[in-house]
Amino acid sequence: MDYEGFFDQQLDGLRRGGNYRRFAELECRAGPRATLHAEGTTRPVTVWCSNDYLGMGQHPRVLAAMHAALDRHGAGAGGTRNIAGNHHCHVALERALAELHGKPAALLFNSGYLANWTTLGTLARRLEGCVVLSDAANHASMIEGIRHSGARCQIFAHNDVDDLAARLAALPRGTPKIVAFESVYSMDGDIAPIAAICDLAARFGALTYLDEVHAVGLYGPRGAGVAAREGLASRIDVIEGTLAKGFGLIGGYIAASASLCDFVRSFASGFIFTTALPPAIAAGALAAIEVLAEADALRARHAAQVAGVRAALDAEGVPHLRNQSHIVPVVVGDPVLCRRMCQRLLDEADIYVQPINYPTVPRGTERLRLTPSPLHAEADIAHLAAAMGRLWADLGLRRAA
Amino acid sequence: MDYEGFFDQQLDGLRRGGNYRRFAELECRAGPRATLHAEGTTRPVTVWCSNDYLGMGQHPRVLAAMHAALDRHGAGAGGTRNIAGNHHCHVALERALAELHGKPAALLFNSGYLANWTTLGTLARRLEGCVVLSDAANHASMIEGIRHSGARCQIFAHNDVDDLAARLAALPRGTPKIVAFESVYSMDGDIAPIAAICDLAARFGALTYLDEVHAVGLYGPRGAGVAAREGLASRIDVIEGTLAKGFGLIGGYIAASASLCDFVRSFASGFIFTTALPPAIAAGALAAIEVLAEADALRARHAAQVAGVRAALDAEGVPHLRNQSHIVPVVVGDPVLCRRMCQRLLDEADIYVQPINYPTVPRGTERLRLTPSPLHAEADIAHLAAAMGRLWADLGLRRAA
Repeated sequence: MDYEGFFDQQLDGLRRGGNYRRFAELECRAGPRATLHAEGTTRPVTVWCSNDYLGMGQHPRVLAAMHAALDRHGAGAGGTRNIAGNHHCHVALERALAELHGKPAALLFNSGYLANWTTLGTLARRLEGCVVLSDAANHASMIEGIRHSGARCQIFAHNDVDDLAARLAALPRGTPKIVAFESVYSMDGDIAPIAAICDLAARFGALTYLDEVHAVGLYGPRGAGVAAREGLASRIDVIEGTLAKGFGLIGGYIAASASLCDFVRSFASGFIFTTALPPAIAAGALAAIEVLAEADALRARHAAQVAGVRAALDAEGVPHLRNQSHIVPVVVGDPVLCRRMCQRLLDEADIYVQPINYPTVPRGTERLRLTPSPLHAEADIAHLAAAMGRLWADLGLRRAA
Repeated sequence: MDYEGFFDQQLDGLRRGGNYRRFAELECRAGPRATLHAEGTTRPVTVWCSNDYLGMGQHPRVLAAMHAALDRHGAGAGGTRNIAGNHHCHVALERALAELHGKPAALLFNSGYLANWTTLGTLARRLEGCVVLSDAANHASMIEGIRHSGARCQIFAHNDVDDLAARLAALPRGTPKIVAFESVYSMDGDIAPIAAICDLAARFGALTYLDEVHAVGLYGPRGAGVAAREGLASRIDVIEGTLAKGFGLIGGYIAASASLCDFVRSFASGFIFTTALPPAIAAGALAAIEVLAEADALRARHAAQVAGVRAALDAEGVPHLRNQSHIVPVVVGDPVLCRRMCQRLLDEADIYVQPINYPTVPRGTERLRLTPSPLHAEADIAHLAAAMGRLWADLGLRRAA
């Protein structure tokens, strides 16, 4: 068996399809400003695709909390949560997360990916005979967790309440069921019909599992997410969130009942057998949660920036998906053109937006995914829209009506 | 379906078996000194079970690098490695890891758990018809990765070269094969016959996958691990390591050929769809690698401390597993007695050692896992051995001959 030859051949396949990923090498400076390293040189760019949506990764209170925790507790946790790695900072952060979501408990993971994979994998595996009903657009981490559980999975059409209802109705009453979905979908930026899904789950006796990673910090009272904004948090059994987007750091979590959190804590391989997050990360996340609990003005400014970007793109005739969130997807629809568009934005306008190709989005829907932040300036928005308008015409892409 | 009732009943099962985990809540201070929070009060303890084996989590150069990176780059990476999250610090760290292990490339993950799960899951799934030969004592993260791959898996008897040979010989020549094993096994502290396993892998055309998480930083030239110490690193296809133990932080990695790393980078869900480690973590890890590259004296002191603990336990008649590593397992053999021993060490001697029970170790082998560090004082060792000797007698456990 020629292993190296096999790897090379598979990579060539990606290259031929335009799906080989080249990582841009960045050094962040302030707000959306970064230094790009490329081909032995460096130059300043403006980042338009960060998931640090609200700039918490550079907030002075977050940084101060991390500096203090580093000096006080050291660099790492030193062990798993069970073995020498359970720090006061983790306990305080879990308490804050539980309170944020109005739940009795919360449980930290090293990433949102692990929170989804581990929690769904553990629940669906250990609830005997469980069937998971999974939205067709769910994130890879949920899909992999469900697959890993070995449980039966039914994929319902994206945001389609009728399809979900029909599938739930066809299952035996006593069968354990989990309805797994997201509030804000990352790539289209659309929002789930949470109330209707909760109604169905209640009617058919299903647990509700809601991924709010693109919503926590950004929506709802104190940044508690979309379910909280709509007064539905109490009807969600498991709220899953991340510390890596709105909160600007790294890590994931669930907020749920005390028994459910304790169950996952006690039985989940992906929780038990891994070193805990560094205390300084937990301290920084706690500071970000506190900052965003009182940041309605920042959230309003964020929404205004998003509206500003949409209006500027409209003025240039650059089409973008209409949605009710902060994510502005501009669909190019071809992997090679999508990559070329991004490369030219970088080369000609010092704008960094990463092309989003398969498998992150379906083939034929390759896109730029713009994420305006409160830290972009008016002039950044004008510059972005002008550059995109010009390139859109240059590349012969279809303009908006 | 009564979900809460199910969770509670399962948790009660753990409690009845003595396997319910209570996390000790710590605040680390300096070296092995920590403040324990318990029942509303705090008190100083000495930690004897940390995986920050060499104290890098408190090393001034590591902390200085992290402070500087926090100020320069902010708190989080802001995205996946592909989308806005690939920082200069990550690139520099991967280069240093590749160099450390003498490999052309390296790839970072958010944890050692993810490195194992993702790499084995991806390789074994995508190498069509692959069979994984997995040591019976492999870590949960390897087991879960192999399981997730869906590939056939054969478990060979722990460190048993004859069993491995027989299994390899029985497989068709052209079948892709991966031999997955560890250098230092975490719970018994024993070391694999790496040379013999490499011989077999070469003879039967198998990839070698070696988990060195309990060895990197601690053994070999520049802390490159046991394979490097034995001159075998070039015969290992994938060296997997962690930044969370010897290097004192968080994160995992593989070091391997450029094609293999690029293959995992390009196809692995657990790598692609997750936020990158914070730049400050990468900067701290790079500093720890640099410190430990020139730390033979520290490694010698570490070995001397381990020998000191063993000798002190021997003098008290407290039996411990003989092995060639820095891990000192004291097997109690009963979950309830093991927990009681640890609780009394804490209550009566201010010594914190977490009981290690099932499923981390097999039932009947419940233990204390002592990890002496260069930062423990002579007096700490004497205090530990005296307390363990007294409690060993009190609990009626069998003394060493």
